[in-house]
Amino acid sequence: MGLKIIDSALSTPQKIVTNDDLSQILDTSDEWISKRTGIKQRYQVVEETTASMATDVAKKLLDKSKVAASEISLIIVATMSPDFMTPSVAATVQGNINATNAMAFDVNAACSGFVYGMSVVNGMLKTGNFEKVLLIGSESLTRLVDWTDRGTAVLFGDSAAGVLIENDATDQSYLINEKLDTIGEMGKYLTAGNVAALNDKEQSFFFQMNGRKVYEFATKRVPESIMTVLDEAQIDPDDVKYFILHQANERIIKSVAKKLDLPMEKFPVNISRFGNTAAASEPVLLAEMMADGKINHGDIIVFSGFGGGLTVGTNVIKY
Amino acid sequence: MGLKIIDSALSTPQKIVTNDDLSQILDTSDEWISKRTGIKQRYQVVEETTASMATDVAKKLLDKSKVAASEISLIIVATMSPDFMTPSVAATVQGNINATNAMAFDVNAACSGFVYGMSVVNGMLKTGNFEKVLLIGSESLTRLVDWTDRGTAVLFGDSAAGVLIENDATDQSYLINEKLDTIGEMGKYLTAGNVAALNDKEQSFFFQMNGRKVYEFATKRVPESIMTVLDEAQIDPDDVKYFILHQANERIIKSVAKKLDLPMEKFPVNISRFGNTAAASEPVLLAEMMADGKINHGDIIVFSGFGGGLTVGTNVIKY
Repeated sequence: MGLKIIDSALSTPQKIVTNDDLSQILDTSDEWISKRTGIKQRYQVVEETTASMATDVAKKLLDKSKVAASEISLIIVATMSPDFMTPSVAATVQGNINATNAMAFDVNAACSGFVYGMSVVNGMLKTGNFEKVLLIGSESLTRLVDWTDRGTAVLFGDSAAGVLIENDATDQSYLINEKLDTIGEMGKYLTAGNVAALNDKEQSFFFQMNGRKVYEFATKRVPESIMTVLDEAQIDPDDVKYFILHQANERIIKSVAKKLDLPMEKFPVNISRFGNTAAASEPVLLAEMMADGKINHGDIIVFSGFGGGLTVGTNVIKY
Repeated sequence: MGLKIIDSALSTPQKIVTNDDLSQILDTSDEWISKRTGIKQRYQVVEETTASMATDVAKKLLDKSKVAASEISLIIVATMSPDFMTPSVAATVQGNINATNAMAFDVNAACSGFVYGMSVVNGMLKTGNFEKVLLIGSESLTRLVDWTDRGTAVLFGDSAAGVLIENDATDQSYLINEKLDTIGEMGKYLTAGNVAALNDKEQSFFFQMNGRKVYEFATKRVPESIMTVLDEAQIDPDDVKYFILHQANERIIKSVAKKLDLPMEKFPVNISRFGNTAAASEPVLLAEMMADGKINHGDIIVFSGFGGGLTVGTNVIKY
């Protein structure tokens, strides 16, 4: 029994915020933002919610794969920006699509939520109690942004994407290897959504980041995580079709490619259009690539997420 | 391979709020509250946080069981009241106890968080990648309470508790059976922490509950869930030592016992001292009972959680 990705889908809010739009309200510029981050625009929820986008993804996945909602036995939403503390985003999705046989809950591992979620799904499938699963990353990060802070306001965007997973009955393992680490002592370098201090005017509710620390963390730990996972699985990095990295900053992705001595062709990048969408970022990129026919059965794909927690996680998947 | 509970521990904030305290700020009374809910007092975080209480639980579990932090490979915190959107409570615990080999994340299934979390742990153990696990429910629900709403303000309290779980190498299964359901279409009857509408003065951030709907839901679905789980496992309800139910309302617990035609002696209740502590409520009760020597190896225990989502979940455990 094991995790097999069947299909992927994504959902974006209608509103696009360009760097030029931001330069109207912040002392910044398109050149400054794109040079440092690779970001040109991001989406922003207006009428949409974390749950409405996740629901849209779920419906698309069911439509595309001709799977009935009643066949879904597990719905996990990875998010650090739920609409409510309760109900969970996943429960709302379950109700919206009428997945009457599904248990549903949210997982929070921030920007590593999608890879952590895959690990959770992989385990739960091994109980034999689940057959078809929706794993969705959905984020409304612009709600957690201080629009007067040009250091963080330009970085984050809203979107959702996810995958339909089946419990494969053959002995073949489609999740080849995984490595998930948490470094809580560095959690203070990237915080957001300080609910504990909502009534404390001296503390910010919004994103606060020590960019240098997070950059150093990512450019050190992500290549290490990838190398460990591939070494253990005895997979040559050249045999990996694509490395789908969390889209936090184009410079981080280039640094990882360089440290691994691999060409950027293996590291697809779409941060220019989405910004950092945390748990949604890897499935958004996967969904775009699958829609473009760039991923074929048998391809080996590495997912690597990193961010708040701090967390880092890598999965090797055979599609 | 399977989930085996080794030990339990709990942590409470220092401050106790009695019904008489509440009657000073709300049009209510000790008699009104205790008659309708069974609650006499609840704890409230002041200096404590969701993460500090969860950390206290983790440290107690390591101390009691003589397990080193480095032996822990997985930390899951079930919570609907995290301090931050990121870092997760679990990541902060991981850092605080220096569990250098643990991956850590939060699960949100509201008041069913502990039973849902057990299901997640049970699955992940089956991968063989995890040996010793901390599963902790921690809640600071008083932050999500509208202190001018006497209908909800009297119900909720803050606390944390959890279990140390080991991956048992024998074929014996200590998690005998489980059933977890989500009914998202009823999610609107119990909402809290409306982050999506933080800037919308017309919407409440705080707990809002249709008490009648939730009561009907719980008194119907919890006995059904328990009967299904026991039937499937061919366990006579009389052979269950204790039914550890989510402590939301003493009347719900009495109704469940009556519907199952079982004596209240099998349904321990501590809601009078804690109020509703969501994901913390079942491990708090378990920890108190284990400390009192009421649970012995070989005992069959049923955990049943219910609440926001709406969610309901039942596990049968052999201790």
